[in-house]
Amino acid sequence: MTSSDKPGNAAEAPADTTGTAGATGVAAQDWTTAAADPQYRAAVVDLLGALAYGELAAFERLAEDAKLAPTLADKAELAKMASAEFHHFERLRDRLAEIGEEPTAAMEPFVSAYDGFHKQTAPSDWLEGLVKAYVGDSIASDFYREVAARLDSDTRELVLAVLDDTGHAGFAVEKVRAAIDADPRVGGRLALWARRLMGEALSQSQRVVADRDALSTMLVGGVADGFDLAEVGRMFSRITEAHTKRMAALGLAA
Amino acid sequence: MTSSDKPGNAAEAPADTTGTAGATGVAAQDWTTAAADPQYRAAVVDLLGALAYGELAAFERLAEDAKLAPTLADKAELAKMASAEFHHFERLRDRLAEIGEEPTAAMEPFVSAYDGFHKQTAPSDWLEGLVKAYVGDSIASDFYREVAARLDSDTRELVLAVLDDTGHAGFAVEKVRAAIDADPRVGGRLALWARRLMGEALSQSQRVVADRDALSTMLVGGVADGFDLAEVGRMFSRITEAHTKRMAALGLAA
Repeated sequence: MTSSDKPGNAAEAPADTTGTAGATGVAAQDWTTAAADPQYRAAVVDLLGALAYGELAAFERLAEDAKLAPTLADKAELAKMASAEFHHFERLRDRLAEIGEEPTAAMEPFVSAYDGFHKQTAPSDWLEGLVKAYVGDSIASDFYREVAARLDSDTRELVLAVLDDTGHAGFAVEKVRAAIDADPRVGGRLALWARRLMGEALSQSQRVVADRDALSTMLVGGVADGFDLAEVGRMFSRITEAHTKRMAALGLAA
Repeated sequence: MTSSDKPGNAAEAPADTTGTAGATGVAAQDWTTAAADPQYRAAVVDLLGALAYGELAAFERLAEDAKLAPTLADKAELAKMASAEFHHFERLRDRLAEIGEEPTAAMEPFVSAYDGFHKQTAPSDWLEGLVKAYVGDSIASDFYREVAARLDSDTRELVLAVLDDTGHAGFAVEKVRAAIDADPRVGGRLALWARRLMGEALSQSQRVVADRDALSTMLVGGVADGFDLAEVGRMFSRITEAHTKRMAALGLAA
């Protein structure tokens, strides 16, 4: 997470740390205590299901993009990231099973949103694939880190662990910068592409939020420590700002 | 390896064990001793390069086939196999680097044969993909195990480790059998498919053997403990027989 912005609610732990010092409500509880509330439990199952399918879809996307790689070394690098995403998927799936949920059932509600996103944003070349991996990962990571601060300690630890950098960012930034240096016109094309990715990601997220009651209720404050609606708005602003800064750092006007 | 046939040369270690008891020549030596012969060294670099690219190509193929999976659980199973192939690739690539070879350079000569094979045999549905994974893996595994018995102890150990079953076989057999039980006509179509796979695999292997001097020389006896030409013929017979038996066990006439 490159944004230095923090959630405005000072009573909460900062969004980018696992520390529970000063945490209140759910954030100060472990899973067993927090899950006694059926609505909280349902929200976490949704969250883990969404993350799990996201990792599986990311695995497929990266494996597919590996085919566009210009060299064997680049291909191996993307395959490595894909494999890392798969191991994240395994942890989330195992956690769902551990808390007595059927992983497939938990993932199903999110399949069409992720598949829709990937279908609408199939990269046409290697650089578009890299920008997509970078943008998609960064946005997802920002979002889940914001949510993580509102979770019980056990779930928070898992969510932060699977968001651990798989090396995408550094690799993508280096390759994209080099391509823009070599041919500045590439920058214009990729900037348009990044804008399209952000638009599509927002539109799919809105669909998910509209469809999933428990998850949305947690986000808009129906559960202890949830955001209120204004806070959700601020969260989206922070994520968009962080995206803009990342694109500028990459040499792309967002 | 389901074949119970063993290489005819009784002085050699059986093809499917790591034991060096009774091994002679190169098979009784470690890498440092054996690699003093530049021709042997070149043959092993070829072999590791071919295996490494084969694993990377298998990763891509399985990730691609995961998209054809009828259920999320099937998709996850294929993604798991793909990830296992990737880790095998990593071990082979690291070994090439360890012995001072550039992994990419070692793999390059084999790219067109593997890519050609996969291009000629793109599965048109989930079952064809499963049969391909099973047949391709089994043939490759049989071949490398035959070769492994002729290798120095360090290289042999690595080759046998990366041939370790990644769970393909059991999974594919179970799914294909169930599909044939449900609709026996499926068996006829898949039997034709398996025959085409075997034909294409043989034709690509022949191209590789014709192109790569060091590797072929090791196979046909130019290096201590290599096969002689008649032995190569017997090896191909054993591999074809094992294939035929596997297809019969699967309910497919080969």
